[in-house]
Amino acid sequence: MDETAVRLSIHELIAAYAECIDEDRLEEWPDFFAEKCHYLITSRQSHEAGYRHGVVYAASRGMLKDRVLALRRANIFEPHRYRHIVGPIRVGKVENGAAEVRSNFIAVRIMHDGETSLFASGRYLDRIDLSAEPYHFVERLVILDSQKIDTLLVIPL
Amino acid sequence: MDETAVRLSIHELIAAYAECIDEDRLEEWPDFFAEKCHYLITSRQSHEAGYRHGVVYAASRGMLKDRVLALRRANIFEPHRYRHIVGPIRVGKVENGAAEVRSNFIAVRIMHDGETSLFASGRYLDRIDLSAEPYHFVERLVILDSQKIDTLLVIPL
Amino acid sequence: MDETAVRLSIHELIAAYAECIDEDRLEEWPDFFAEKCHYLITSRQSHEAGYRHGVVYAASRGMLKDRVLALRRANIFEPHRYRHIVGPIRVGKVENGAAEVRSNFIAVRIMHDGETSLFASGRYLDRIDLSAEPYHFVERLVILDSQKIDTLLVIPL
Repeated sequence: MDETAVRLSIHELIAAYAECIDEDRLEEWPDFFAEKCHYLITSRQSHEAGYRHGVVYAASRGMLKDRVLALRRANIFEPHRYRHIVGPIRVGKVENGAAEVRSNFIAVRIMHDGETSLFASGRYLDRIDLSAEPYHFVERLVILDSQKIDTLLVIPL
Repeated sequence: MDETAVRLSIHELIAAYAECIDEDRLEEWPDFFAEKCHYLITSRQSHEAGYRHGVVYAASRGMLKDRVLALRRANIFEPHRYRHIVGPIRVGKVENGAAEVRSNFIAVRIMHDGETSLFASGRYLDRIDLSAEPYHFVERLVILDSQKIDTLLVIPL
Repeated sequence: MDETAVRLSIHELIAAYAECIDEDRLEEWPDFFAEKCHYLITSRQSHEAGYRHGVVYAASRGMLKDRVLALRRANIFEPHRYRHIVGPIRVGKVENGAAEVRSNFIAVRIMHDGETSLFASGRYLDRIDLSAEPYHFVERLVILDSQKIDTLLVIPL
């Protein structure tokens, strides 16, 4: 496998994921994951304490789809959008057709009235399946820097 | 055309553009565009509504130059600087010697007294001419996430 | 030297550096520098005025180690963490086994109580030794956009 090509495809996956959420195409969001996957949003403190649960948790693409359905149906929250800025991205161990990848991110939140604020910062700890293109996340842990997690955390990160 | 080389040159164009503005070398800014070009700063709402105008608009390199001249001459605004953080960058369709590229950005604004704030977030929707190096923007749409656009928007984004 | 490979290794160095600080592995931080090096945190105004000193200064890896020791021993400051977002990265002149590299960054600061704020923005002006992998910084100038430098600036940037 050509290392540069693998890296470019990993960058592409991470960029496409952010764009999907930021452009509110949430119905496509589960497709970035493998059928059996692990998606978790948690705080650094919980993560370092070894807890495997968090504010948001899913163990399959089906659970992610359910989450989007619920989110669309409920629709009780104040409409808002995110803008993800991601980088730098580190590609770690690549073996058995999977890559371990870590990246820093911030999410800016834009409320319906245009009010903009720094909503969250943290990092993505990813395990990415490289066996077919486009690549998929087998695991995506969203580790938030702050334990102060806004109750408005409805949209995935 | 080697795909990796093209991507690196696209990244280089986007980085050089941000640096030019952030370092206040605005006189060089029009040179990032093709002679006939389309530069627009607008809000997501206006863009999605299909409006082709915005807060700032130019249809040629000459118009961009005029804008810089006016900006330097007027000089009535409170001096400030931007710092652009850009990423991730997605390279989309590449055909007929042009690439469609999308990227997320935030602009931090630093006032003369050092006061720093998150000024704008959004994305760049670019069409880039690949026929000669360095590449040039044929179209650069700056889509701001918020419709609350600061009246201090004088420096290009 | 393959240009793409060099660029990837430069990106890797910059990403690993940010991760090291953000994950509070400060004892490893001096290892990103050459034995004889130049590390400086200063403001844009001081830098443009040609001053070679700044808020933080070190001329060797040993001085960087001393700084970390002092920082760990003192421990009088309020505990906090940074999250660096870096990009875009520009690779400039590459000659005599060294590269000149410039990148934009912001640092978000997360206090112990979870309070998160945009702490600093600026750019890195780097000279990187390419003679052996992993690469090392021969010079890393941290040019802050604002001259309002928080007295809490204890952790390296």
